[in-house]
Amino acid sequence: MERWLASWQRGCDASAVLRFLDINLRGIGQVMLQNNPLSGALFLAAIGWGALAADALEVLFGGLLALLTATLTAIWLRVDRQALGDGLYGYNALLVGLALPTFLQPSPSLWGYVVLGGAVSVVAMLAIANLIRTWQLSALTFPFVIVTWALLLAAFAFAGIDGGAPPYAGEVAALAPAASNPLDLAGFIAGVYNSISQVFLKASPVSALLFVAGLAVSSVAAAVFAVAGGCWPSPARTCSARRATWSVPACWVSARCSPPSPSARCSMRPVRVALYAALATLFTVVAQAAMNVAFAPLGLPALTAPFVLTTWLFLLPRQHLGQKDG
Amino acid sequence: MERWLASWQRGCDASAVLRFLDINLRGIGQVMLQNNPLSGALFLAAIGWGALAADALEVLFGGLLALLTATLTAIWLRVDRQALGDGLYGYNALLVGLALPTFLQPSPSLWGYVVLGGAVSVVAMLAIANLIRTWQLSALTFPFVIVTWALLLAAFAFAGIDGGAPPYAGEVAALAPAASNPLDLAGFIAGVYNSISQVFLKASPVSALLFVAGLAVSSVAAAVFAVAGGCWPSPARTCSARRATWSVPACWVSARCSPPSPSARCSMRPVRVALYAALATLFTVVAQAAMNVAFAPLGLPALTAPFVLTTWLFLLPRQHLGQKDG
Amino acid sequence: MERWLASWQRGCDASAVLRFLDINLRGIGQVMLQNNPLSGALFLAAIGWGALAADALEVLFGGLLALLTATLTAIWLRVDRQALGDGLYGYNALLVGLALPTFLQPSPSLWGYVVLGGAVSVVAMLAIANLIRTWQLSALTFPFVIVTWALLLAAFAFAGIDGGAPPYAGEVAALAPAASNPLDLAGFIAGVYNSISQVFLKASPVSALLFVAGLAVSSVAAAVFAVAGGCWPSPARTCSARRATWSVPACWVSARCSPPSPSARCSMRPVRVALYAALATLFTVVAQAAMNVAFAPLGLPALTAPFVLTTWLFLLPRQHLGQKDG
Repeated sequence: MERWLASWQRGCDASAVLRFLDINLRGIGQVMLQNNPLSGALFLAAIGWGALAADALEVLFGGLLALLTATLTAIWLRVDRQALGDGLYGYNALLVGLALPTFLQPSPSLWGYVVLGGAVSVVAMLAIANLIRTWQLSALTFPFVIVTWALLLAAFAFAGIDGGAPPYAGEVAALAPAASNPLDLAGFIAGVYNSISQVFLKASPVSALLFVAGLAVSSVAAAVFAVAGGCWPSPARTCSARRATWSVPACWVSARCSPPSPSARCSMRPVRVALYAALATLFTVVAQAAMNVAFAPLGLPALTAPFVLTTWLFLLPRQHLGQKDG
Repeated sequence: MERWLASWQRGCDASAVLRFLDINLRGIGQVMLQNNPLSGALFLAAIGWGALAADALEVLFGGLLALLTATLTAIWLRVDRQALGDGLYGYNALLVGLALPTFLQPSPSLWGYVVLGGAVSVVAMLAIANLIRTWQLSALTFPFVIVTWALLLAAFAFAGIDGGAPPYAGEVAALAPAASNPLDLAGFIAGVYNSISQVFLKASPVSALLFVAGLAVSSVAAAVFAVAGGCWPSPARTCSARRATWSVPACWVSARCSPPSPSARCSMRPVRVALYAALATLFTVVAQAAMNVAFAPLGLPALTAPFVLTTWLFLLPRQHLGQKDG
Repeated sequence: MERWLASWQRGCDASAVLRFLDINLRGIGQVMLQNNPLSGALFLAAIGWGALAADALEVLFGGLLALLTATLTAIWLRVDRQALGDGLYGYNALLVGLALPTFLQPSPSLWGYVVLGGAVSVVAMLAIANLIRTWQLSALTFPFVIVTWALLLAAFAFAGIDGGAPPYAGEVAALAPAASNPLDLAGFIAGVYNSISQVFLKASPVSALLFVAGLAVSSVAAAVFAVAGGCWPSPARTCSARRATWSVPACWVSARCSPPSPSARCSMRPVRVALYAALATLFTVVAQAAMNVAFAPLGLPALTAPFVLTTWLFLLPRQHLGQKDG
């Protein structure tokens, strides 16, 4: 694996085409936090298979179109080359491109929205990263969230133009698990997670296996944790793969205490971190339900906003936790 | 009084149980800005009497449950010991615990929400304090506001689960004074203040007297001003008790010019401060009415958000007011 | 022109009345970014003519009342004298005063709202400028937006009091161009711009000529660009007149690369700036449509919020664009 990556890297250094391909594949890998072109290729296969299985190839096409637009936009804007090479300007665009055809009927203007969303997602990534740098937070998938919200609402405003059916036809219902599964809390929690995977991944067993394979080539631990706990990708961007843990918010907190920031004064023990992460998970479910209700009048999906906002809420206090006793 | 507090302090130093009690009582006292365990005890009596008089003991129980949860959470998270000892991690939880049973029908899951809200209020307090430190603002009761909003909306989403009646049954109506009292502006202003005291305090004359007594044992001036102007507690956290003034926003502004910040370049004279405070009060009423209307489609109460947001709006310009003439 | 301004300046130094008039005229000029009393006088004539032509003198009166209130408030609060003298505490109040009578039926309380809005717009200007200073952004017309939103929503809450008709009678419809002109995208874009000019300017050909004249006395280039591209004023506050460009967002970006900040590392070439500005324009249209839909349930106009938010989004990444190749 190491040797394959080294020879791939040499290829990229020699060929601009390979380098461009590499950036895009890493962009796909970053959706699940993997800065690895092979992971990206396997994730792409997973998305493609899922789209095929669900007879929704427009989702795959939308994702790729937005990703390519974003990579070209980022190159053209001469953003930071290191971040560009790591695929950090691609994952939000990919999610925008997967989400728009999921919620909107295919139409000529849909592809216009996808291209615009891909380009603006790069600007939004730069803007949000700059905005929250003060608090040492990362942008997570918030660029995807605000760009998709703006485009979905605008598409609703422009709906009369193409003469097509109103958007959100039926699709948004799948995002209100509380309404469709009012049976029990466990069902609701499952529904929350399912609805996310449904939207982005058009989930199918083969897709799931390809995803796990994509994780495994980059980090066996990440793959194990993903199988065990369903560590879904989008909200967990700060999670270092080596310490990727049994659930999304554990990722969040482990990011705080992970080796990359040795200067951190974190003295929280693993059990405490795990319980803090459990509290964050529980509150993410609350935030998801709350935003579903709050956005219902607009027919707007909450997307990954509950995860992003809860993550920020639980990461902001980092340096004030685990104080030494006086 | 001084002597009693000194001996209480010795007791707390000697006994962990007393110290734990002390933290919780100060947390109750902080709802009205008093870092004083005796004030907290009298406020607790006021809340308890009010709950009894309104036949709503679940409100008292909810407040105490959330407060205890928050104190244990803060201890477990090893937050700053000074702030913990001053009760600063308790007052938001107390308000969450008073608000949830006010707006939601008693049910098994209600107490789950109260415990979760108490715990998360500590995280929210740390997060918001960290977020707004850049502008030298304090968190006021905003942690209470966002945690209560999230839990109320989520309870609405989960409502089908317990088979209970939909939440907000009738209660929210009491929070829309413009709708219920469209008679005159004065009536509206009174309604705004009343609705707040109703929600948190289940107001009764005895309760009011106990509150004033609780203020008086800590600060006679605060008690006088409270009687004169109804200096309600929650939004006025930055107010130093000694300079507590005739109304909430006067508190806000006095915080700017109070002795604790001698380096401040404030040269505003008292009359100017009072007029600035009056403008803030007037705009708080506007903000309250605006948020009532804006949140009406969701059936969500504005809680103390108008006060918090207006306070921040009027405190942000502090260092730019009262410039010397060139 | 230079000589006239010099003698006017001498007059202002000698007379407090002239200086007060000067501040207010510059406040009007700042709505289109011109720190020039003659521009302000011509803009005032344009607004007055437009109001007359539309038989809506209450709009002119509201604008002047709010402007005078704001200037007096700013003097009384002893704000920074340089910014005060440049008219920077006036333009938001003028817009508040123009907007309120546009959306609300004339009534005794309307003028109370206008006075309150004018005074609070000064506080909001100071607060927002302080809030976003961290990111080297300017407040643009966001103070106008939040003050007007709060007052419109509150007026709705208080509507029963005066016994008048419900507010927003018909007027808001003019702000939903997607609904009224669902013909084509170009029509929508035109509608967006028209609705803005309609609201603030009660547009008429004579008014348009007076506006261009007001720009020309301050900057011929600004006038040319305004004619060519409709560089509407409110969102473009950071635009230096000399480099005012063919459209609003070009202004935004040129602000980044304009001479006043020579230390900036911007190496973006003009073509790239123009394309970036075009992307911003396109996304402003999306944001306008999105906010129209999002605010429709409240019957609230988006005002200039889409412009302000898009401008901030596209200005935040400034220092990360145009990196040198490694």
